[in-house]
Amino acid sequence: MSEFKNGTKKVFVGPFVQSKTLKELEICKDGIIGVDEEGRIAFVERSTADVEAALKLHGWEKVEVIRLKENGFYFPGFIDTHIHASQYPNAGIFGKSTLLDWLNTYTFPLEASFSDVARARAIYNRVVSRTLSHGTTTAAYYATIHVAATNLLADICLAHGQRAFIGRVCMDSAIAPDFYKDESAAQALAATRESIAHIRNIDPTHAIVSPIITPRFAPACSPDCLAQLGELHRETGYPAQTHISENMNEVKLVGELFPDARSYAHVYDDAGLLTDKMILAHAVHLNDDEVALVKARDAKISHCPASNTALTSGTAKVRKYLDYGIDVGLGTDVSGGFSPSVLEVVKQAVWVSRHVAMEAGDAVKLSTEEALYLATRGGAKVVGLAERIGGFEVGMDWDAQMVLLNEVQDMEGHGEDEGPVDHFGWESWEDKVAKWVYNGDDRNTVAVWVKGRLVHKTSRYQS
Amino acid sequence: MSEFKNGTKKVFVGPFVQSKTLKELEICKDGIIGVDEEGRIAFVERSTADVEAALKLHGWEKVEVIRLKENGFYFPGFIDTHIHASQYPNAGIFGKSTLLDWLNTYTFPLEASFSDVARARAIYNRVVSRTLSHGTTTAAYYATIHVAATNLLADICLAHGQRAFIGRVCMDSAIAPDFYKDESAAQALAATRESIAHIRNIDPTHAIVSPIITPRFAPACSPDCLAQLGELHRETGYPAQTHISENMNEVKLVGELFPDARSYAHVYDDAGLLTDKMILAHAVHLNDDEVALVKARDAKISHCPASNTALTSGTAKVRKYLDYGIDVGLGTDVSGGFSPSVLEVVKQAVWVSRHVAMEAGDAVKLSTEEALYLATRGGAKVVGLAERIGGFEVGMDWDAQMVLLNEVQDMEGHGEDEGPVDHFGWESWEDKVAKWVYNGDDRNTVAVWVKGRLVHKTSRYQS
Repeated sequence: MSEFKNGTKKVFVGPFVQSKTLKELEICKDGIIGVDEEGRIAFVERSTADVEAALKLHGWEKVEVIRLKENGFYFPGFIDTHIHASQYPNAGIFGKSTLLDWLNTYTFPLEASFSDVARARAIYNRVVSRTLSHGTTTAAYYATIHVAATNLLADICLAHGQRAFIGRVCMDSAIAPDFYKDESAAQALAATRESIAHIRNIDPTHAIVSPIITPRFAPACSPDCLAQLGELHRETGYPAQTHISENMNEVKLVGELFPDARSYAHVYDDAGLLTDKMILAHAVHLNDDEVALVKARDAKISHCPASNTALTSGTAKVRKYLDYGIDVGLGTDVSGGFSPSVLEVVKQAVWVSRHVAMEAGDAVKLSTEEALYLATRGGAKVVGLAERIGGFEVGMDWDAQMVLLNEVQDMEGHGEDEGPVDHFGWESWEDKVAKWVYNGDDRNTVAVWVKGRLVHKTSRYQS
Repeated sequence: MSEFKNGTKKVFVGPFVQSKTLKELEICKDGIIGVDEEGRIAFVERSTADVEAALKLHGWEKVEVIRLKENGFYFPGFIDTHIHASQYPNAGIFGKSTLLDWLNTYTFPLEASFSDVARARAIYNRVVSRTLSHGTTTAAYYATIHVAATNLLADICLAHGQRAFIGRVCMDSAIAPDFYKDESAAQALAATRESIAHIRNIDPTHAIVSPIITPRFAPACSPDCLAQLGELHRETGYPAQTHISENMNEVKLVGELFPDARSYAHVYDDAGLLTDKMILAHAVHLNDDEVALVKARDAKISHCPASNTALTSGTAKVRKYLDYGIDVGLGTDVSGGFSPSVLEVVKQAVWVSRHVAMEAGDAVKLSTEEALYLATRGGAKVVGLAERIGGFEVGMDWDAQMVLLNEVQDMEGHGEDEGPVDHFGWESWEDKVAKWVYNGDDRNTVAVWVKGRLVHKTSRYQS
């Protein structure tokens, strides 16, 4: 990207919004954030619009100044803790299916087609540029079983500058379809190692792309495969991701396939996979014993409300997990989830919490602030990068989006038509944020940075 | 609008999609639809792309030809059966509130401000242009108690060419706030008559705008006010709209305020308001006795799923109403509903039905096809215009939208960035429609017609 000037310091001038805690947003109306040559936040000034003074204070001279010239704010980049990059072409296609028939009808045939690397290139380029356009600065991706296509996804994320975890999918059990499966546990392991080696080669420090060990989910993996992936997880220290307890029929199936395991969560624990570097997607139907185990192991939960609703999987009890102190982030779960937008999933998390509240009472509702926390700071904890991303703190990387709202400019009601959010001018800052969350979309995200690098911009972006 | 040429016949060439029945979409890949000088559909050809032959067959000579040049289809305009035009600036602002505190915190103060006609003009111009941009060709609007602003809304709809029902809101009871209420039933009636007279004056045949009698909801109206509005409904034959059984606290309140009524629905029935021209918004908590009464009176239901979820009101049992044979349409319910888009509400209806299905079983799920029916044919029945709008039938008005999808154009994954739906080229027609429903938005609606008149277009529209 031509905008990326290594060795140039940048200062971002204008309002910024970020999660301070689960329940509290910080809204700073006059912010100046300095980002160093490495893309790290060097200072955060909260009470001046005087750029010269701020630069002088920090001894900075030659810098690029990015100013928010319209009504809007900087917001931390979104973290998508669960997304199947390969399923992107099926986003929105699910019919009346539920998990297990959905996999066979829609998902496995599409994923199998990634043996064609040219096809994989078209799809992966598109999903990475799309998710960047929605403000996703970090994604935990599932690819497919194909090493070549999986490695290509890593290449594409690195080229686009999207921070990503790249998972070569392992699935060797009898329930995986004949046309799309690993021949054996050994082959699943060898392919995983091959993909890890590629990613180490293209990004040795994992500044942008990292491997992630990816047993698809317990029913698709032999006990041997799970155990070997658990050993690889321990040996390499690379994170892991899988699915858990998404659908009642799946839970039943796990009981049949793993009769000796105390629970679904114990299947992973028995294999050495339930660690503080494991991302568990869904966690809709965990029993209390499992919740306690997840907490004891400090494993992470990726909440995927859009998917859980679309596939009628159930409603994850997020308030309960938060009350237990479990780290929770949000996942689009494309294409069980219909949208590649984390902002859409922020809304869906709020909606699902309201449906839970209709049964369990208002206390379990997630607020807008809480859902935004899950999409940023929560997600950062889930992917193991809480010190580096998710907020605007000195020492963190500048993974951020510039959000603009539309101003209704005169009393005839005219105004810009470049986005879905109308701002009449009398709104409070809290209302502006709410309008963005509930009616905003990728049109409002006019620029996106990862590690200080401009990785997406729209025609509305003016620096 | 300069595009409106009275006296010009038009033919619309290209694929079209419409509801045939509740469960079935018609997808016609080669359509030619002729629209006469009055905006009425004169013919529908389903099996030829030969425009000359079609014109010759129907003896048409001088016509304007509109061609769908890209990947897309014509779809009937959406019918929003419940929307508070005056609340549009609050779309997305609801916090953690539920109905009764939401009214007092957010809604009544905003509505009260419509005593300022200049402010009303800005907001009403914006909401009408916004809803048109989302493909809403017909809207059943609540305005406010102010006659001048209400009449202005009618003027604006007529000027923009949006088919609309315009309701001057009546609210004279003790629970209405002092700063925003009718002084008496007599005053509510007089103001309503004044607004009716204005609308009759500007559109005597109600070709585009019609009055609609609008008691806000039972708790906000005195029994006398309801009875007099019932009498006006009978006397004038104009339709009516109100809210019913949205929230359990509201239901309880109605029981206290109307101790002699058998039920909430009976309050309206006792006043002569429960007729086949009454639109009942929400209907979340109706008991079986009420459902039977609604069916017996052939009253209509406006299902507002986005609002019901956002305000934690509950889940309307739409499958039950449909099984009873009650006519159901969709309502955005801005700003209890956060979005002015009926397409968003189509999705929300599907989501809510899935939450109902998590309790009641898969049979109650609404399919994509059913939700689209509610947004078009169903809505047409609800507003009493089933013979005129909601589909592409000879004799109906051409109320339609042109929908375009994006094509991912090459194997690098590039393609148009003008909309959120990616089409890779291998999708079935059913998949294309699903992708539009679940990921599409106003960017995909590139042109909108009401009664043959082009009332909205984007930069992507080429005729």
